[in-house]
Amino acid sequence: MKERLWNYFLKVRNTSPLVHNITNYVVMNTTANALLAAGASPVMAHAHPEMKDMVRIAGALVVNVGTLDEYWVESMRLAIEETELSHKPWILDPVGAGATPYRNQVLHELITSFHPSVIRGNASEIMSLAQTSVNTKGVDSTHHADEAIGTAVNLNKISGAVICISGATDHIIHQGRAASLKNGDPLMAKITGMGCTATALTGAFCAASPDELFEATVAAMAVMGVAGEKAAQLAKGPGSLQMHFLDALYSLNEGDFYDTLVLENGDQI
Amino acid sequence: MKERLWNYFLKVRNTSPLVHNITNYVVMNTTANALLAAGASPVMAHAHPEMKDMVRIAGALVVNVGTLDEYWVESMRLAIEETELSHKPWILDPVGAGATPYRNQVLHELITSFHPSVIRGNASEIMSLAQTSVNTKGVDSTHHADEAIGTAVNLNKISGAVICISGATDHIIHQGRAASLKNGDPLMAKITGMGCTATALTGAFCAASPDELFEATVAAMAVMGVAGEKAAQLAKGPGSLQMHFLDALYSLNEGDFYDTLVLENGDQI
Amino acid sequence: MKERLWNYFLKVRNTSPLVHNITNYVVMNTTANALLAAGASPVMAHAHPEMKDMVRIAGALVVNVGTLDEYWVESMRLAIEETELSHKPWILDPVGAGATPYRNQVLHELITSFHPSVIRGNASEIMSLAQTSVNTKGVDSTHHADEAIGTAVNLNKISGAVICISGATDHIIHQGRAASLKNGDPLMAKITGMGCTATALTGAFCAASPDELFEATVAAMAVMGVAGEKAAQLAKGPGSLQMHFLDALYSLNEGDFYDTLVLENGDQI
Repeated sequence: MKERLWNYFLKVRNTSPLVHNITNYVVMNTTANALLAAGASPVMAHAHPEMKDMVRIAGALVVNVGTLDEYWVESMRLAIEETELSHKPWILDPVGAGATPYRNQVLHELITSFHPSVIRGNASEIMSLAQTSVNTKGVDSTHHADEAIGTAVNLNKISGAVICISGATDHIIHQGRAASLKNGDPLMAKITGMGCTATALTGAFCAASPDELFEATVAAMAVMGVAGEKAAQLAKGPGSLQMHFLDALYSLNEGDFYDTLVLENGDQI
Repeated sequence: MKERLWNYFLKVRNTSPLVHNITNYVVMNTTANALLAAGASPVMAHAHPEMKDMVRIAGALVVNVGTLDEYWVESMRLAIEETELSHKPWILDPVGAGATPYRNQVLHELITSFHPSVIRGNASEIMSLAQTSVNTKGVDSTHHADEAIGTAVNLNKISGAVICISGATDHIIHQGRAASLKNGDPLMAKITGMGCTATALTGAFCAASPDELFEATVAAMAVMGVAGEKAAQLAKGPGSLQMHFLDALYSLNEGDFYDTLVLENGDQI
Repeated sequence: MKERLWNYFLKVRNTSPLVHNITNYVVMNTTANALLAAGASPVMAHAHPEMKDMVRIAGALVVNVGTLDEYWVESMRLAIEETELSHKPWILDPVGAGATPYRNQVLHELITSFHPSVIRGNASEIMSLAQTSVNTKGVDSTHHADEAIGTAVNLNKISGAVICISGATDHIIHQGRAASLKNGDPLMAKITGMGCTATALTGAFCAASPDELFEATVAAMAVMGVAGEKAAQLAKGPGSLQMHFLDALYSLNEGDFYDTLVLENGDQI
């Protein structure tokens, strides 16, 4: 099982897929660097006149609503339309779902008018996306990932998207299959954009393996968690964690990956 | 006195206030990370349809005009209106005040049509805000903080805001009270956004202690200066300073804070 | 020759020129920090009502189309017009040239309606700028710098701009003069915005020495490459490279510069 996951990472490193990101201002630098460190090729673009053309040269699209506004939401629509026409995967990161009615309304449109391939969020965001009644405190999670599993199963049925709930344990759920990962470190929550980075990496893994999105998502989250955990062993705080994370992602080798990875329900891979 | 200041920091760490930032593109990542390292919870958002809703769930608003444009200025207006209606503190960072007439005009509106709770800038920015005749060279200060004190006293009278002039010595001034802090390191001026970070932290401290804004501002600047000074002892240049700063902010303890802090006029705390 | 180049750096450090950047969201923080580390003073601004005023207080303008949209393209036009009226240098970074028709059309306008002082890009971008038939893969280069030299000579003739093609070897070309630099490290391509940083530094060097743009560009690229190479010797991956790069740029001394620099065609300096 672990070898299967590692091979998804090798595919990213070997094919260097171009990932088109329509993402938030806070994490653009961070996620571009993470994509490069993982071996993928990032492009950040949002201009309406080039949305469809950019999608055509990319392997996958990442849509992150962190600092959305009216112009950027229209960029998302244009890019998603073309992505779906091209049968390429697109990944939704519902940052801050539940924080405001506007954000909820945009997210509602994105998951009902379109068909995300994968949705990755923290427990509060996933629960909010499924049940509009949940209260979210800004962009940080106030729920544990475990609470959100039932909701995720429903959201998967409704949306058809692979659902990834990240947290101390990451849960990836799709059509009766489920995998759980217990890597990472609590310090990762003290850096902004670690969730967004997980989503961006998922975009790269799905671009490299568009025919097996469930396993590609598990592999992306596995690499994310293992690199984070290795980095945390060297870090003295969130500043050095961020540096070590990129170094670990770049230099991660097969042996360390197998030794560090804690995968449950591995028989589903 | 030092214990009082430390307790303001503990309140941030213990209550993890949500700070809504309408800030510039250059420092969004940096300030979000600093807020997280200090124990607060950052949100960056500017979409008009969600401005008032985002303010409602936040404990304070930070308005930073560094990369302002027409859309963002309207975001600021909407958010400030709601913040004042909700009687929550909002902090103004007049980045580059004096650099252009447009910037001056926007800042003039923000301090005359509204009532910032705290204004933090370098000496040139504070002087420019009070006297439109001062020339500013971009966003870096060409005046010493000491020169700006008289101006700050006037600006406090006119605006009602706590005035914080940051520099080699930081001066915090409000209604006849004044405190000065002599921490930090000259190398901090070689990283972009250190001033913006001080403003963001001030937002967190004011959110946690909205009833005592003068002391909350002194405490924020004290923590900023001490963390910067501790980080500079380990740094080999601006790149490593940025990393060590986040680590120092995250792990700062009471003993180190007391040993490092250089506070003048401490009897006013 | 090497002393001449070092003296251009000293001029930046001694005069601390203000560089106005209209650049992409991904690299704003990175390039602002690099400008500060090199001794320059960065300002990032794009609001139409302040474009001309900001240009007036700056020594040079950097235009980077990485995350362009309609509003930002108009900001570029306004700033460039004023820069050319003021006879100040402006530097074009054609990020992702060739990726989309919209990007090509904007770049075509910028180099035909205006007169960039320097154009810096990777080989694919430079070739695309000259021949619209070249395919680009997003923002990373798929051509070697050497392939683009003939094209660069033509582009120099057509545009009048100093042409800088960066890569494993950097080539700087202007009116029959050419210099090549063989510094840097492959790991630099694994950090986003290293090319944009080279362009920003070129802006600082041209601002400090507006009467000798060819040599100022060679000097900027020399400092960039040497700092990158020194940093790579200490780095364990792209995360630590970024940190060490800023430290190396800040603390670079004359002896290390001379010992590390590999300059070909130095007789043309």
